[in-house]
Amino acid sequence: MVTMRDVAQRAGVSIATVSFLLNDTKPVTAATRARIEQAMLELGYRRNVVARALASKRTRIIAMAYPALEHRFGMSTAEFFTSAAEAARKDDYHLVLWPVGNDGVELRELLGQGLVDGVVLMEVQLDDPRIAVLRQAATPFAMIGRTTELDGLSHVDIDFDTTVEDAVRHLYELGHRELALISGDLDDPRFHAYGPWVRVEEAYRRVAASYGLPVVVLPCSDTTQAGKAATERLLDRHPETTAVLVLNEYAALGVVSGLKRAGHDVPGNTSVLALLSVPETAAMTDPELTMMRTPGPELGQLGTEALIRQLEGADPLPPQLVPAKLSPGATVATPRAPRPKAGAGRRGARKARS
Amino acid sequence: MVTMRDVAQRAGVSIATVSFLLNDTKPVTAATRARIEQAMLELGYRRNVVARALASKRTRIIAMAYPALEHRFGMSTAEFFTSAAEAARKDDYHLVLWPVGNDGVELRELLGQGLVDGVVLMEVQLDDPRIAVLRQAATPFAMIGRTTELDGLSHVDIDFDTTVEDAVRHLYELGHRELALISGDLDDPRFHAYGPWVRVEEAYRRVAASYGLPVVVLPCSDTTQAGKAATERLLDRHPETTAVLVLNEYAALGVVSGLKRAGHDVPGNTSVLALLSVPETAAMTDPELTMMRTPGPELGQLGTEALIRQLEGADPLPPQLVPAKLSPGATVATPRAPRPKAGAGRRGARKARS
Repeated sequence: MVTMRDVAQRAGVSIATVSFLLNDTKPVTAATRARIEQAMLELGYRRNVVARALASKRTRIIAMAYPALEHRFGMSTAEFFTSAAEAARKDDYHLVLWPVGNDGVELRELLGQGLVDGVVLMEVQLDDPRIAVLRQAATPFAMIGRTTELDGLSHVDIDFDTTVEDAVRHLYELGHRELALISGDLDDPRFHAYGPWVRVEEAYRRVAASYGLPVVVLPCSDTTQAGKAATERLLDRHPETTAVLVLNEYAALGVVSGLKRAGHDVPGNTSVLALLSVPETAAMTDPELTMMRTPGPELGQLGTEALIRQLEGADPLPPQLVPAKLSPGATVATPRAPRPKAGAGRRGARKARS
Repeated sequence: MVTMRDVAQRAGVSIATVSFLLNDTKPVTAATRARIEQAMLELGYRRNVVARALASKRTRIIAMAYPALEHRFGMSTAEFFTSAAEAARKDDYHLVLWPVGNDGVELRELLGQGLVDGVVLMEVQLDDPRIAVLRQAATPFAMIGRTTELDGLSHVDIDFDTTVEDAVRHLYELGHRELALISGDLDDPRFHAYGPWVRVEEAYRRVAASYGLPVVVLPCSDTTQAGKAATERLLDRHPETTAVLVLNEYAALGVVSGLKRAGHDVPGNTSVLALLSVPETAAMTDPELTMMRTPGPELGQLGTEALIRQLEGADPLPPQLVPAKLSPGATVATPRAPRPKAGAGRRGARKARS
């Protein structure tokens, strides 16, 4: 068994320095770090985590179950995943990704092998068959997302209500009264019970109505092409729209393209507010998207922490709902013209639309 | 032990139908499939794969080692990953993703636990420390990518030479003589030995020279913002450029934005050809990018097959190099003006630049 002392000798540093690095208790220089890691490699030194795992019969590995065939693994997903992986690493766990379907069949197969101490569930459905599978396997788990029946389940999620409320208020306060939501496509059988889409659309209908706004909602799947097509439909049916909220990350790119292609100036003519996006995606349009920033870094970390607390027998993490926060870009401005005073013609137009 | 017969009875179908579904030998209707899967869930039936794994002391799990902290997990990566996962599934393996650093330290820790039968290595460096780790652990592996010293290692990779040659020829045949490559950033210590960037840049320098073209290469990391900044530098230093090749997927989005922002019409004024991209990313610009399409679906599948052949003791898969193929978009056209005949002033300009 190679010891920390062996590593220290080989690297020509003190045992304390090796310990500082391994336990992250004090910073060490990059050069020293490189020397120690080289020595560890050469000697085949395994960090304590492995020894501890062997002693405890636990693997200290946790899996993030991500239905990669049903759901796009986009920039936002990458944020959840890397932040979860970093959070796991801090507590001496390894996080791996299981790209298993969201019906629970493959998840059951993998769980049966006792490979992991616990699971972080992503892309949770309102009534998620994976919950029963995890319970049957007696595997600890935490959800990033949430089922309708929460039943004391450990979860963290986006606060969709606050996110939508903040987004609508922002546009309303700028003077927008003709809003539209380009939503998810709930008719798609893969997504009809997908929590984020259902919750955002419900919240939007409620909030828009509470502001006395007409409720215009168009379904759209999460691709740039679909965003362009939905924009064409929107301009055709609701040319009065002055601001578009877009639920999905990649659809939002297509909405900006679609508006520009139709001769609209963004935001001079029409504003676009992405409801859940991340800086790297927002930078892909010109002008850059104004967005509600998905709290992926926070939720990836919190979801992992919720699981690890269970594994360590610590106090449970109370459920956390984190809103996406407004992140200024350059696609939202005041509406193109002041709202005309209510008149017969205008009322007629409103009636024809609703 | 729950048997296939139990599942068939519970689902109210014949044993043959259960077998058709499980072995994918005949199509079954969605309704029947749902009934059978429900019965499997309720009975806790595990597919043969698990039983086989238990009998053979193998896990039938393979890991894709992807350095998610060093490398962006973009749309192209998602294609490699999902195609590898599908290929594994076809052969009754599960593929999981290990987001372990590319220094081999964490990889060693995970391998030490005997969790997987083999590893598919992604984002291979020219001299990759993970190779020694895998060899020491006696774990079978295949590379998607390749080291400089191949030494009989199982690998599949992009044929960068052919890809670059085809890209340059395409632009040359359209009449372009003033090309520039917006490359990777090889000065970044994380990527200075990253195979794809080194190979593409080498190939470009060679191919451009062989066509008698001036060699203009600008470093750029793989973000939209970096692409915009590189475009500014390019226009400043080489305003004569009529066509830009862009190595990286997200940088290419920024190059199109940057050109348009500088008042260039794309492609009327300047052509853009993405050297390694995928349809979903290409659709994010307006006009849509012309690209060399990354063969992620093929390579994900071939890399997994190369590994599984080793695991099954089958004939090894010979190394495969697959070029990215030209996929027409709308950002490449003939150059903006015929090349002026060689004259003193022109030569002066050329000299000043080179």
